[in-house]
Formats: sequence, structure tokens, C-alpha cells
Amino acid sequence: MGRRGFLAAGAGAFLCTIGSERVLLARPGDAAKADAAAARVERPAFAAQRRGGGPQPSTPGADPVDALRFEQPAPRPGGQVREHWIEAVRQRWDIVPSRPRRDLWHGRAIPGPTAFDAFVYRRATAGFASPVRSGAMPGPILECEVGDVLKVHVRNSLPEKSGQAITMHPHGVRYNPEYDGVYLGDFTRAGGFIAPGEEFTYLWEATPDSVGVWPYHDHGPNHTLNTMRGLFGAIVVRAKGAPSPAREYVLVLHSLLPPITGLRRAYQCINGHAYAGNTPTLRAGVGDDVAIHVIGMDNNFHDFHIHGHRWKKDGAGIFTDNPTLGPNETITARFTEDNPGRWLYHCHVFAHQDGGMTGMYLVDP
Amino acid sequence: MGRRGFLAAGAGAFLCTIGSERVLLARPGDAAKADAAAARVERPAFAAQRRGGGPQPSTPGADPVDALRFEQPAPRPGGQVREHWIEAVRQRWDIVPSRPRRDLWHGRAIPGPTAFDAFVYRRATAGFASPVRSGAMPGPILECEVGDVLKVHVRNSLPEKSGQAITMHPHGVRYNPEYDGVYLGDFTRAGGFIAPGEEFTYLWEATPDSVGVWPYHDHGPNHTLNTMRGLFGAIVVRAKGAPSPAREYVLVLHSLLPPITGLRRAYQCINGHAYAGNTPTLRAGVGDDVAIHVIGMDNNFHDFHIHGHRWKKDGAGIFTDNPTLGPNETITARFTEDNPGRWLYHCHVFAHQDGGMTGMYLVDP
Amino acid sequence: MGRRGFLAAGAGAFLCTIGSERVLLARPGDAAKADAAAARVERPAFAAQRRGGGPQPSTPGADPVDALRFEQPAPRPGGQVREHWIEAVRQRWDIVPSRPRRDLWHGRAIPGPTAFDAFVYRRATAGFASPVRSGAMPGPILECEVGDVLKVHVRNSLPEKSGQAITMHPHGVRYNPEYDGVYLGDFTRAGGFIAPGEEFTYLWEATPDSVGVWPYHDHGPNHTLNTMRGLFGAIVVRAKGAPSPAREYVLVLHSLLPPITGLRRAYQCINGHAYAGNTPTLRAGVGDDVAIHVIGMDNNFHDFHIHGHRWKKDGAGIFTDNPTLGPNETITARFTEDNPGRWLYHCHVFAHQDGGMTGMYLVDP
Repeated sequence: MGRRGFLAAGAGAFLCTIGSERVLLARPGDAAKADAAAARVERPAFAAQRRGGGPQPSTPGADPVDALRFEQPAPRPGGQVREHWIEAVRQRWDIVPSRPRRDLWHGRAIPGPTAFDAFVYRRATAGFASPVRSGAMPGPILECEVGDVLKVHVRNSLPEKSGQAITMHPHGVRYNPEYDGVYLGDFTRAGGFIAPGEEFTYLWEATPDSVGVWPYHDHGPNHTLNTMRGLFGAIVVRAKGAPSPAREYVLVLHSLLPPITGLRRAYQCINGHAYAGNTPTLRAGVGDDVAIHVIGMDNNFHDFHIHGHRWKKDGAGIFTDNPTLGPNETITARFTEDNPGRWLYHCHVFAHQDGGMTGMYLVDP
Repeated sequence: MGRRGFLAAGAGAFLCTIGSERVLLARPGDAAKADAAAARVERPAFAAQRRGGGPQPSTPGADPVDALRFEQPAPRPGGQVREHWIEAVRQRWDIVPSRPRRDLWHGRAIPGPTAFDAFVYRRATAGFASPVRSGAMPGPILECEVGDVLKVHVRNSLPEKSGQAITMHPHGVRYNPEYDGVYLGDFTRAGGFIAPGEEFTYLWEATPDSVGVWPYHDHGPNHTLNTMRGLFGAIVVRAKGAPSPAREYVLVLHSLLPPITGLRRAYQCINGHAYAGNTPTLRAGVGDDVAIHVIGMDNNFHDFHIHGHRWKKDGAGIFTDNPTLGPNETITARFTEDNPGRWLYHCHVFAHQDGGMTGMYLVDP
Repeated sequence: MGRRGFLAAGAGAFLCTIGSERVLLARPGDAAKADAAAARVERPAFAAQRRGGGPQPSTPGADPVDALRFEQPAPRPGGQVREHWIEAVRQRWDIVPSRPRRDLWHGRAIPGPTAFDAFVYRRATAGFASPVRSGAMPGPILECEVGDVLKVHVRNSLPEKSGQAITMHPHGVRYNPEYDGVYLGDFTRAGGFIAPGEEFTYLWEATPDSVGVWPYHDHGPNHTLNTMRGLFGAIVVRAKGAPSPAREYVLVLHSLLPPITGLRRAYQCINGHAYAGNTPTLRAGVGDDVAIHVIGMDNNFHDFHIHGHRWKKDGAGIFTDNPTLGPNETITARFTEDNPGRWLYHCHVFAHQDGGMTGMYLVDP
């Protein structure tokens, strides 16, 4: 395996199952093949015909549970409905947006180009009247408390030419199968196939065992590619009446790969960006209650180190400064800030760290 | 690296140390080379000559601990001996047994062939009079309570032509070195080399720190290949008098690779099968105490997500719906069922999920 | 991908960012290129001119926190200063030092050569008067109690021809940015660039949340390569007055790769050595309070199994005999020894286990 081969391997080839097809994403341009396959996935009969119902009893594997109907979730006493309008959009995205492109850690110039057509979730005003701001990685952070219901209106605003169904699948919150947001072929429920131009409203409950920070992401027919190109976000659930931390950050660790971006190399990213000065520069002050939530969002495992800081692993027990996390798993670094200065944070997998998965944390005295 | 190369890499080449040889398993057919190497491993002098003794003092590295002899484990007061007869057999195994071969999630047809000659543990009646049922991945689940002794008679019933010694090495339970079930070259104890046609009886104690669910697997001279081709199972140890969960499942996450199977592609498996409708379809009802134990059994790390459910990580502390696990590590999802419907469960490493490591969980109202 | 390709891939190619350069380490000999790049990294202006100060306000990205000055850490009442003199040296290192080269587990002869020029930390007497012993992987274990200050004098004694700046970056302990031991380009503080022939004295505090065992390692401009060639060690912090375990071991799991060693194959190592009988042979007696601390130090994730033993995961909660750990993460196996004999310990990733990441643990009755 020569250098060319190594770089190709570093490109992160992977196989996707998309409806009835199996697509290899190995080279720049392959994303178009996956998108074409996704566009060929037919709307599940159920989703089109019987919102709230299940597959025909004659469907192979069909079961009485597929015919179940569910009550609409409602807030618990004292809880509220938290309403969001979110669109899935295609949006130009620069992995290394600083100009000149630069790694603030080493002072190294980063060669371009570094932009590609991402798919992201973008917040809109009520009724999708207008975008609130640009989409981002992660998408809108959905905050709530135990007892609340998240009412999330999701619109598929992908352009016709990349037309494919998407969804929004949440972790951590409670939902019935209608609101699972997963394409399941013949067993797809209403929220599992939002075609271009369509909308769907999810109702998710924050239960006592939902306390924590969780990812959400596309789980439609093309979910692997779409998630790996940016269609993900986060949910924050607090105990009833629990105060917000003074400083709270969500960092998503993931890779942006050539078969997806069409770029020449893989970037090891935090929130869609690579290299310090492009990734989030966090900030806090001495005395602040700080919470940094870190979520994995690719095929790799990571760990997460903040220089100059330690915290209790999983909020209890032993101390750590570098816990492991897997894809769609969350770890939280929570501590009372006591150490001013400029600090590096990074994934401690050396290959990820050197590929861009680093950032700066500035603490005021 | 072209597509051919990618597929080859996805084939999961790996090196094995087998006695005095080092064998590369990279291509279909290489398993035969490893088997031939394993067949050339000589019976350790000790195992043949002095059951219960150690290597000669003149053996390089020999130590007084190698000459130790051990008392036979016996149940604690109130405990019992739980006796099992288990054979290691070669058995035809279909990774995608549904007909037509199908992924119930996406409704995709899976091309064949998908069968190969696995090595599995198979339960027999007392005295190995007859097989109780076919062997499986995992092999027989060995249940017991703290204070019990597992008495496991293991017979090597592999065919002569694939003749090689095997063992059964348990995790979690207590055993003295005679019952470790590990080939250790010159230091091999009696339970560490069961040649074809031979039997060995292991005695394992369930101690208070054995509570949990644990893998067992071959740990003879060819253990890496044999484990990766199916020679593994599970042990369930409960606290004394603890009730069984209403619904309890053991899921083993592993890959079946071309150098092992002779098939053209790698399959990402749960309990030896790939793709929903082939992997276990789990079932429970609202109100049930449910325990799903998940064990890693290959070279990869995994995490494990169940749609619509959350539980306490490691049985305490924070909530999770997607914890990480390593090779031969166990995580348990335990919760009181409250969410009826059809749910997907899967490893959340996208490449594993898309390669077949998914299944369905049906909850009755 | 042929066998040659597999072996090359197993060689573990990786990319390093070294100052303004990006160097691919893929083949034997590539380490020299990285060293040359590291030698070209200029001393940060700040480190040379204004020890204790920050970058010029005109530096892109500069912030008021970069001009902060910090008080010198001092021991808490009842604490003490623990002083160490440690040199970074180049030292010939044999990965398989037994003669004849041998894997004590399988009895297999290991082909040579197996030695290379490592970079290691080596303990010296006060004032660097003379080496106390050879350098090692890990370097000197730095023990202290909560309330103490570690005063670590580090000298860069690398030969001129491999001249490059190094540092010592600790995990777990508290330090202000001067003592972070990290090269940060324009933001480098005094302890982040120790050129050949120079010394720097780090002051690190053991705070209540420092209790545990932690790695330290080079974090200079060439840190990825240097760490992966041996420039790492460990810190042990105990609660005030807490007794030392009767038997305490630190095991670092890491790989030594052809681009680094110039050898033909990758070795999966524990403390710089591969295969039982070369890796540490641990020893304890029945009744001993045993602590085995295991730290990851490469790009891989590992888990850690000791035959015949179980312990509480993270010191609490569920029992384990095989927990997962990531790069620069520590897990501790702590138990009261009760099981005499010869035991195998190993990473349970099969490919690592078969590549040398195994050892023996002897327990006296």
C-alpha cells in the first residue's frame, strides 16, 4: 500500500444500504450515487396510505404490534410544549473557514479548497416563515425539562435534484413508533419518510430517564451518508427546575470524508470544522459551572481531553480527563472552572488530533 | 486502493499466532492453513503426563507456582452443582437464513451464498448421549447463582480432518488454573488442550463478584480463528435468589470474515446472523422486567442502541441508550418495558449497522 | 490488497502535523523525515523572549488570557514538594529482549531483529549529575499525595543530530498554562518548548480530583511520533495518607510501528515489549491488595483481561474482567488477591493479543 493508497484509505470508504441497493462510497463523487439510490427509494405504502397504521397483515414479518395506534404525548403537569421549526437543507459548508486557512495550534497554513455541499438542519421561524439563521453542525440545540414535550416540525427543504426522504431520529427522549423518525421499509411509520417538500411534526417526551444530552440525526433511507455529511444535532434535557450551567457547549466529533465531500482528504472535525481556530473556541470564567457535552458522530471511537481540567467520569466515581465515547454516545465534562488561561482540547486518538480534531478553550480569571 | 482493495480490506485480514507458527488470514481459504497449523501443535508434555502438575523445573521460565496443586471447587452452603454437557462441533451455518434472503429493515434482497462451516458449541444430554439441539452462536447459556459450581463437560467433537485441540475459557466466574481453559504452551494445565475425541470437565465457581453476564470461548492453540468462526457462548450469574428478568436476551456482536467463511464479503453479525429478520427478533410486553446483555466478540469496538428505550449505564449513574463495548466486554440494557411497538436495535457504528448488525424488538401492549 | 499490502497496512501508517509541515509516516525510514521537520520548527518567539508572558497582542487570535501571569504552585499544608530529575534521551530498545527471542505463551521463536532507537524518559540524580538507571517505557513513575507539588526538572538530552524540542505534558494533575508542557505555536508558554541541551522545571499540583493514575508524555512539536516511539510515563496520585497497594503495576498498551522503528512488522506492546516473557511478568501473593493500572498510548482502543480475576469497573458498580480503554485513558484493576497460580493477562482485541500484547501474572499461595 503506497502513499496514494494510504491517503485513499484515510479517505474512509464505507458501504451503505439504501433501500434495496448497496452502495460503496470510496471516492470523491460517490455521494451522488448514494443520493441517486436514495431518490429511487419508494415511499412505503403505509406512510402514504395510512398514517398511524401498520403494514398489511400479509406483509412478510408483519405482526400485531404493527397495527397498534398510539395516544398523542402531552406534557406532564407543570411541563410545557417546546415548539421548533427545523428544515433539512443543502448548504455550502467550509470545513476550514478561517482566512487565511490556518491551524491556530501549530500556526500551519491549511491548503484549500475546503468547502463542500453539506446537508444540515436549519432553524426557521414559526410556520417555516423564514430561516432564523444558517444551518450548522450540529443543528439547533433542542432544550427542555423533564415533563415537557418537544414538538418539532421538520421540513425537507432539500433541493429537488438531490431529492430524497429524510427524517429526524432523536436519542434520549421518549417517543412512540410514529415519532421514532426511522425508515423501516414495509414497517415505516408516519415520521419515517419525509419526502422533499413535505413536513412532519414529531412529539417527543422528556421523561426522568431522559436527563442528559443526546444526539438527533437523519434516519431515513440514506441516513448513513446524510448523517456523515452533517444532518445531525443535539437535545438537552434537564431535571425539572435544574439550573443551566453558566457555560454549556455541545461538541460533536466526526470525520468529513472524500467520498462525501469530494475533497482530496479526510478531515477530523468538531462541529463540522477542522483545526483550532476553526473548531469552536470555548470560553468561560473562573467560578463558572461549565458543562461540555461531547458526542461521537462517525464510524470511529474517540476520547476527549481538556488540558488543565479533570472531572468525574459519568458524573460520579473516578476522576478522568479523557473518557472514551462511541458513535452517537455522549460524555459530559462538568466542573467548576478554576484554571484561567488558554487551553487545548482534543480527541486523544493521535491520528484524529493531527487530522484536525482540536480546539481552544479560553478561561478568564 | 480501488474497490477491489476496499472489499479485500473489509474482508478483515488478521494474523494469528498458533503454537510455533504465525499465520496470515487474508483470503478465502486461509482458514485451512490456520487449521493445519493448529493440527500441528503438539500436546503439551504436562497435559499428557501429569494432569494437575506443572512444567518440569527445567522448563525456561518455570516457577514454583507451576507446581501448585489445587483443591476441587465445591458449592457453598445452599449452592448447587449445575451440570452441562457441551460439544465443540463443526456445523454448517447460514448467516442469512431467511428465504428468500432478506433484510427485513430495508426490504432488500441479500445475495447468496451465505453459508459456511462454522465451529460451534452444542448442548448434549448427560454423558454426551445425544445432541439436545443444534449448536449455535452463542453456544448454550450457562445459568447459575452465587454459591453454585458450574460443572461443564466439554467434548471435542470436531471431525478428524479439521482435528485440533479446543478448550472452553470462561469470563466472570472463579476457577483455579486447572480450569482456566487456556493453552499456555509449556505451562498448559489439564483444561487447556482438549484434542479431538477427548473430553474435559471444568469446575467453575460463581462468587459474589461473578454476578453479571459473561462470555466463554475457545482459548486453545487456534483460539482467535475458532472464536471468530463461532466457538463462543455466555454465562449468566445471578445473586443468590435473585429473580430472573421476565425477558432476558444475550446478543453477541461480531463479524464473520471472508478468510474465515470463504464467502465473498464480511458480515456484521448478531448471534451469527446478519440483517433484521435473520438476527434475533426480540419480544417483550409492557410491564416486563427486560434484560438485554450485549457482548463483543471480534476485533472491533461497538456500541448498542435500542430505539425508544433508555437505561442506566452500568446499572447506575447516568442514562444511556447507546453504550460502548469492546471485545469480550458485556453491557446490559435493563429496564421496565413501557413502550409498545416495533423497534430497531443496532450497533451504532454506521459501517456495522449497514453491514448487518441490526435487529427488531417487538413490544406487546 | 495482497499480503504485502496487508503487512504494510498493519505497519500503521499515520500523518503528523509538525509545526508548519504535514508528514506521512508510512514506511521504515519515515521517522527521519518527521525528525527533520521537527528540527525545523522555530522556537516560539514568546518562549525565547518572555518566559511567563504571552504572544504579541498583534498575533492573530491573541487574547487577554495570553498575557496572564500565574502564581507559583506551592504544597498545601501538610503536603510536600516531590522533586524529580528526568532526561529525554535516545536509547537503543529491544522490543523482544529474551534470548533466544521467545513468546513464553506459545513457546514460539520470535524472529529478529527487534531493536530500534527509541526516545524515552530516564531518571537522573539531583542536578542531572548522572543517570539513575536506563530509560524505559513507561518512564519514571511519579508518585505523590493530594496536597503535594510535583517539581519535575526535565532536560532534553536528545543527541544533536536528532535535535528537536520536547516537553512533558501530564494528565490528572493541576497546572497553570506555564506548566502545561504543550507546544502551541504562537501561544506556547515556557514549558512548551525544551530545545536540545535545555532544561525546564514543571510544577504540578496534586488536587483532590487528581486521585488516580495518569499518563504523561511529550507534547512538543513532534509529539505524536515521539509519544509513539516511547516518550511517555505515568503519575500516581493517592489520597492524603492512603496506603500504597501491596503490589502496584503500571502497564501501558501501545504499538511500535515500522515507520517509527524501521523494523519489518508492527509489534503490539506492553511497556515497550511484545509477547509474554518479554512484557512485564507481574507477581503477587494471596491476600495482597493488588492494583494494576492500564493506560492506552497509541491510535487504538483496547480492553484488558486478567485470567482468573474480576474487579469493580471504575472502582464501583458492576464487576468486570475486561474493561475498554482509549488512548491516554487509564483503567485500574484493583482486587484482593485470592487465586494462586500462573495467569495470562492480555488485551482482548484478538489482533492485538496475537501481535504480542500479552503477559504473565504469577500469584504465590
